[in-house]
Amino acid sequence: MKEKLYIIKIGGALIDDEEALDQFLNKFSNISGKRILVHGGGKLTSTLAEKLHVPQQMVDGRRVTDAQTLDIATMVYAGKINKSIVAKLQNLDCDAMGFTGADANLIQAEKRSVEEIDFGFVGDVNRKSVNSKLIRKFLKLDLIPVFSAITHDHHGDLLNTNADSIASVLAQALSKKFDVELLFCFDKDGVLEDVNDNSTLIEALSEDDVLKLKEEKKIHKGILPKIENALLAKKNGVQKIFLINETKLQEHIIYDNQGTEIC
Amino acid sequence: MKEKLYIIKIGGALIDDEEALDQFLNKFSNISGKRILVHGGGKLTSTLAEKLHVPQQMVDGRRVTDAQTLDIATMVYAGKINKSIVAKLQNLDCDAMGFTGADANLIQAEKRSVEEIDFGFVGDVNRKSVNSKLIRKFLKLDLIPVFSAITHDHHGDLLNTNADSIASVLAQALSKKFDVELLFCFDKDGVLEDVNDNSTLIEALSEDDVLKLKEEKKIHKGILPKIENALLAKKNGVQKIFLINETKLQEHIIYDNQGTEIC
Repeated sequence: MKEKLYIIKIGGALIDDEEALDQFLNKFSNISGKRILVHGGGKLTSTLAEKLHVPQQMVDGRRVTDAQTLDIATMVYAGKINKSIVAKLQNLDCDAMGFTGADANLIQAEKRSVEEIDFGFVGDVNRKSVNSKLIRKFLKLDLIPVFSAITHDHHGDLLNTNADSIASVLAQALSKKFDVELLFCFDKDGVLEDVNDNSTLIEALSEDDVLKLKEEKKIHKGILPKIENALLAKKNGVQKIFLINETKLQEHIIYDNQGTEIC
Repeated sequence: MKEKLYIIKIGGALIDDEEALDQFLNKFSNISGKRILVHGGGKLTSTLAEKLHVPQQMVDGRRVTDAQTLDIATMVYAGKINKSIVAKLQNLDCDAMGFTGADANLIQAEKRSVEEIDFGFVGDVNRKSVNSKLIRKFLKLDLIPVFSAITHDHHGDLLNTNADSIASVLAQALSKKFDVELLFCFDKDGVLEDVNDNSTLIEALSEDDVLKLKEEKKIHKGILPKIENALLAKKNGVQKIFLINETKLQEHIIYDNQGTEIC
């Protein structure tokens, strides 16, 4: 039987709320066994860009990353956020180690090609981007990898990369050797029919369901990248995938019944 | 016979000059065998603090690190500088992996106690601060550790730490299992009798020599921390220690005769 591995992704809203983040990390530290944490960015990148008078351009909710914005994203994601989380986890006796994809060439991305829009220093990843052999070695040393959403192209450039995609490709790459459970944690109870009503939780979601909900325009735009990354993970052999409320991590781990399962 | 390990420290002036840094990293990538790189900060921390209107206080050339300044230092050292160097080295086929002391608890510092001055979030280290067992495992995986000058206290706080001290304590801790050569690289040819004249290079320097030069006030203030860290390393068993010009790394490695040797 394969060993269990949790790959847990947390988003910006949680990172922006220090008390909530501390509570989450406390729960994360209580999970036994192998774990990987992937974190997004939060508002600090935009705040810092504004203070430094670096104009930000968003296209369909995605940040166009010019050289100055990449510097800011690297400072915030790989510096401030990543190292704060690592230090907090160390205090909780979790032997966390922070990474970008450039470190030990763990995730090598492709710079997004310019079509209609030039997204700049943005990287796209797939399961072959992941150096799973080395990550397995780190896990074997009982280290807890903490990934920020920065990768590289192996030609000297860092690349801003979607954190949901990083969590998904890590899960895909590691599912051959581990029994992977991929958890997308956010501020809703899961996928909701009505985004403002937690009682409309959809408990299970297949690819067909998603297509249907998309046709009916019933999927909230903000959750679509998570769902698509989750479906891709499912297609590529990830054993278990859930979208859950970040406050319910512990209940999910114990009772296995929170949130929306991708099936 | 012990395996050779180079521990190479580079400073702020080099980091501020991208062309010079690229040339240095190119030479660094050509060294065969085990290597660790330790880097300082450069001017970016001060520049960023100024842009963000965070007043900076220096006492005897040392930065007082309040919470906001620690955030800036973490963003600059552990984010921008560390990850840029790692990405550049990866492009040169050096399997670099960037660290702070918080990562995998590699360097656990003591927050400096408040005496006359409260330096804030500043950490002091000694050879017992270093998790040399795990660093040896990374070296065995042929990884090239790249340390930024941020450590932690294992109680959740990151700490700004002198990069010369980090290089020195890494060398001390690893000298039991490796034949360590510790190189402090900077913009002079070594310790000079006249700081403006490279022809006044002192080729070898013992503790007694240093005491004498200090009495005669012949040691330039800026170089004293390097010399003191070098002497401490010598006392604690580090096999070879040099202060060299960063442009002469290759010549030093090949001919073993550049700079000032601490003996």
